[in-house]
Amino acid sequence: MSYQDATETSVSFGQPPPREDMQQQWRLITQLHRSYILIENEKGLLLIDQHAAHERINYERIAEQMDGNDAVQKQLLAVPQTIELSLKEKNLLTAHLPHFNDIGFELEFFGGNTVLVRALPLSLRTSELPALIRNLLNDLSGESAECENTTDELKEKTKRVRRTLLYALACRSAVMFGDVLSEEEQRALVSELAKTKNNQSCVHGRPTSYQISLDDLAKWFKRK
Amino acid sequence: MSYQDATETSVSFGQPPPREDMQQQWRLITQLHRSYILIENEKGLLLIDQHAAHERINYERIAEQMDGNDAVQKQLLAVPQTIELSLKEKNLLTAHLPHFNDIGFELEFFGGNTVLVRALPLSLRTSELPALIRNLLNDLSGESAECENTTDELKEKTKRVRRTLLYALACRSAVMFGDVLSEEEQRALVSELAKTKNNQSCVHGRPTSYQISLDDLAKWFKRK
Repeated sequence: MSYQDATETSVSFGQPPPREDMQQQWRLITQLHRSYILIENEKGLLLIDQHAAHERINYERIAEQMDGNDAVQKQLLAVPQTIELSLKEKNLLTAHLPHFNDIGFELEFFGGNTVLVRALPLSLRTSELPALIRNLLNDLSGESAECENTTDELKEKTKRVRRTLLYALACRSAVMFGDVLSEEEQRALVSELAKTKNNQSCVHGRPTSYQISLDDLAKWFKRK
Repeated sequence: MSYQDATETSVSFGQPPPREDMQQQWRLITQLHRSYILIENEKGLLLIDQHAAHERINYERIAEQMDGNDAVQKQLLAVPQTIELSLKEKNLLTAHLPHFNDIGFELEFFGGNTVLVRALPLSLRTSELPALIRNLLNDLSGESAECENTTDELKEKTKRVRRTLLYALACRSAVMFGDVLSEEEQRALVSELAKTKNNQSCVHGRPTSYQISLDDLAKWFKRK
């Protein structure tokens, strides 16, 4: 089957925002080395970095919910989970608790350095919860716990912390290199990526896709 | 499924002749744009030019049969086919008839400019027979029909003509860009290519395969 026979949704890659004239048919090929998704499109062969792509999708979804003042989609834990923090981690969490609840967590202190997790953002894996919370706190360790002197400083800091948390959340809830994805998951990832406002790069600026053109192929094989 | 799960035959690519220490597992992925065969191997992604690969396989098979003085495998036509030649083509064929029979044809003149085809090399498609014969003759049109003065000159000419015909035959009996190959055909092509003495290039010197390494991928996606 070539791309002409494909019955996929029309999507586009390579330029933000997606434009009508760039839309093209594509055929899902497979996952390569459990890390890249291969797509046959009119231009040639498109490779997608599954982690970078998922990070971009997660980021835009959560940011959109927050900008639209929609509640961030969360999952309530049937049994709330407790996590023991270090003193430094506890202080960081104390300073930033509202920001955590902002992005879909429901956390509360439970005495000592223990924090109780009642809910977490929908996309996260509960199995890695303690490590995840610690990682998010670690990403914030550059932020002082001091109060800001002016409203502007506070706003600026809030914005910065929120972005740090969002980036970290988008990254840590994304599929990793080595994760096996079903055909359906691969297809969903590609479709979702195409719908993002900026599908060129992940939140850290790395490319989400790489196009090998028919011209590249012709050159590699000395057909040109 | 990753290459680790693959149950393919061990084969190697990239160096003639195949060496034990280069053997590696591979997984057949698919045909890309009806022209390239994609393989997942330990190194990353291997692309194979289906025409160049088949040309190489055909060439080595026929050359081996001839060198070993085995009869070149041929197919007898149930109904011999006649082809009308131009005077120039007829003269070329007259001069080179033994060479054609050498590589698996059974041709004889039938009066006027008509040639009768009783058999042809096994790999050829009978549907394109007249065009094929004309193309082979065309490839020989640089050779004069004159007799040579010395035995050495004759030997040299015979060798040259034979090589020209073999190259042309290998090329014209190979799958083309755009030919749809079944999964089984793709697999056979890859396996056969790996067994050839020189699997790096087709008889015209173009590469048969192109390896994209995991390192290339990491660089494209700015992971390095």
